[in-house]
Amino acid sequence: MGRWEPNARERLLRAALELFIEQGYEDTTVVEIAERAGLTKSTFFRHFPDKREVLFFGQDTLCQLLADGIAAAPRSAAPLEAVAAALDAVAVVFPPERRELGPQREAIIAANSELQEREALKRAGFATAMTQALLARGVPDPTARIAAELGIGAYYRAFEQWADPAGQQTLTELTRQALGQLRAAAATLG
Amino acid sequence: MGRWEPNARERLLRAALELFIEQGYEDTTVVEIAERAGLTKSTFFRHFPDKREVLFFGQDTLCQLLADGIAAAPRSAAPLEAVAAALDAVAVVFPPERRELGPQREAIIAANSELQEREALKRAGFATAMTQALLARGVPDPTARIAAELGIGAYYRAFEQWADPAGQQTLTELTRQALGQLRAAAATLG
Repeated sequence: MGRWEPNARERLLRAALELFIEQGYEDTTVVEIAERAGLTKSTFFRHFPDKREVLFFGQDTLCQLLADGIAAAPRSAAPLEAVAAALDAVAVVFPPERRELGPQREAIIAANSELQEREALKRAGFATAMTQALLARGVPDPTARIAAELGIGAYYRAFEQWADPAGQQTLTELTRQALGQLRAAAATLG
Repeated sequence: MGRWEPNARERLLRAALELFIEQGYEDTTVVEIAERAGLTKSTFFRHFPDKREVLFFGQDTLCQLLADGIAAAPRSAAPLEAVAAALDAVAVVFPPERRELGPQREAIIAANSELQEREALKRAGFATAMTQALLARGVPDPTARIAAELGIGAYYRAFEQWADPAGQQTLTELTRQALGQLRAAAATLG
């Protein structure tokens, strides 16, 4: 192990996003990312397995937070209340200074089909984590899946809105709002 | 262009599934698939861009069928009725003799993370196609997304059940049943 670098992961993430936008994802190497961050290649590989995973870092942690949030909801909570609790648990790990990173990340992913595939699997992984946690609470099968899907829908919707620099609301507020809208819309399906 | 080969696409598909199962997806080449099917490499490339797309063939056609099915539903149809019409349109293009291919395909995909990513994007593509078609009918935004998600959920659920060789129901019957179950479950979200 090399010496400890303060905030290395964040520096690598920001450097990678910059380079992917400036010169394209395909044409950016790990060495360039490390250089831009003022770090070494081996520091990069202590934090990420490859350049792609810089864009998908934290997925396992978020899945765990979602599952734990659902498990920790009161026994009496309805499926969507448990989902709301899980989304609250996730919202707090995104500080306001990360607000601007979302649109950068999305622009990079939108330009590359391999990244779109990876992103789709990430979303599916969130839904699966929430579905499993709801099933473990005794929520029956199709209800658990639908509640999880609504939760993930609310999560992505809230993130989109949060990215708007003119917005004043916190991620927690936006997530709760989005979930409320999806819940109301689900009642009008016919 | 080489000479016309009867049923070449189907032969290539079945040969690819066999080989992917026998020796693994990674270790199978396009040349081997063509050989097993009794066809040439150039015939393969007239039907598929690469070995991966053998597993995802027809996605654009299915998206189009889903979108057209929704567009063609009566003006008075509720969102989920339009979705049901679209699923009916898709179910008829799967003849009973394809029933056994689903589980083979799934086993191959489950063993490879790149294929799982591609599959997740395929599913997301179906949902987007249906959402767009519902929006075009004037269904408002979050409702359209939820109706599309329920439709895709029903589609995958029905396919899973259809793959059971002991099952007696048609894909159309299973799809309608699954959509009915998801619709009922959506009413119990709390």
